[in-house]
Amino acid sequence: MTVKNSVKRLLQYRLFVLRLQELGFDNVFSHHIAKEVGVSPEQVRKDFSLYGIKGYKKAGYNINNALEVFNESFGRTEIRNIIVMGMGYLGRAMVLNNKSFISNKFRIVAAFDINPAKRKKFFSIPVYSPDELQSIINLHKVKTAILTVPIISAQIVCNSLVQEGINGIMSFAPVVLTVPEHVAVNYVNLCNELEATSFTALTKSKLKY
Amino acid sequence: MTVKNSVKRLLQYRLFVLRLQELGFDNVFSHHIAKEVGVSPEQVRKDFSLYGIKGYKKAGYNINNALEVFNESFGRTEIRNIIVMGMGYLGRAMVLNNKSFISNKFRIVAAFDINPAKRKKFFSIPVYSPDELQSIINLHKVKTAILTVPIISAQIVCNSLVQEGINGIMSFAPVVLTVPEHVAVNYVNLCNELEATSFTALTKSKLKY
Repeated sequence: MTVKNSVKRLLQYRLFVLRLQELGFDNVFSHHIAKEVGVSPEQVRKDFSLYGIKGYKKAGYNINNALEVFNESFGRTEIRNIIVMGMGYLGRAMVLNNKSFISNKFRIVAAFDINPAKRKKFFSIPVYSPDELQSIINLHKVKTAILTVPIISAQIVCNSLVQEGINGIMSFAPVVLTVPEHVAVNYVNLCNELEATSFTALTKSKLKY
Repeated sequence: MTVKNSVKRLLQYRLFVLRLQELGFDNVFSHHIAKEVGVSPEQVRKDFSLYGIKGYKKAGYNINNALEVFNESFGRTEIRNIIVMGMGYLGRAMVLNNKSFISNKFRIVAAFDINPAKRKKFFSIPVYSPDELQSIINLHKVKTAILTVPIISAQIVCNSLVQEGINGIMSFAPVVLTVPEHVAVNYVNLCNELEATSFTALTKSKLKY
């Protein structure tokens, strides 16, 4: 199953509303959120109402109320252990991002690479052989993995992740992975992100929403 | 201006439809596209109709027709030169991704880092001092930049990019950048992508679309 845009929107709303709270705001209007996240105000209102967050014509949404609702879904208290597959530059960049992940209740506990030369600690994160996948996943109760391996091995690595119980995969490989229905795949497509950037700059937002 | 989700959706549609064409399909239904991209079939139909792509109840959308329309917006023939700001692991991962960028008509022509020790060629891409920004941007007519610098310097680097005529910034720094209205910023937020992955796996898609 591909991660849905609706989930991504909610996370974008949450980030923005969190920032407003830190800045001391009490209320926010749908059109402010819409502008920030890059969706239509109608979409914001639809999404918020789906989550039971009530808005008022003159005051907008109450920020504390909205955050409470979002935190019920996304605000985690327990740390979730994650692993990184592939220790090329992208994999290493992920490990270096661990501090930021940890402040979001994710923690990289291990990385894997088929190249024995890469199997030493990298910024205190151990790098294992793929042979150790099962034991490490079981040891740390890992459910989520970041996939940074080359296209050619993406499906094979994906298969072994799924076999060992991983149910969420964030993949940088620009290839569609075949997974069982219960597994969520989130494709981070760098070319598409770049194209979206360039296209938006070029059209200066000819599209209405 | 933040890059809009609608633009990202269109690029996702395009990727999927391209793949179907390669597989030899002629037609596709909105619910197939919807499932793949993670939006509702209604959203697909709305987006396609906004672009004037006509669908038929029994045959769905004609794939060649849809691609023609998408390619009018996104299919570029000329290469667009881009630069990478910051040559940490993420910046280097971007340079290593150049082959994939090039097949999408983007080409990294230069990178920049404040650390003089990093200023040598990296996989044939020269790494310059930020002092060279203006001359390199002018020389290569660069309009789009990838920002991989730490949070603390993100806004400063962003300002100099804008000053030198960059109008599209793809940023990995988890911080909101202040830019003039004509500049498009695309935030790639790794924590949010991870949260979306984990959340989707956990809820097994309780949300309807």
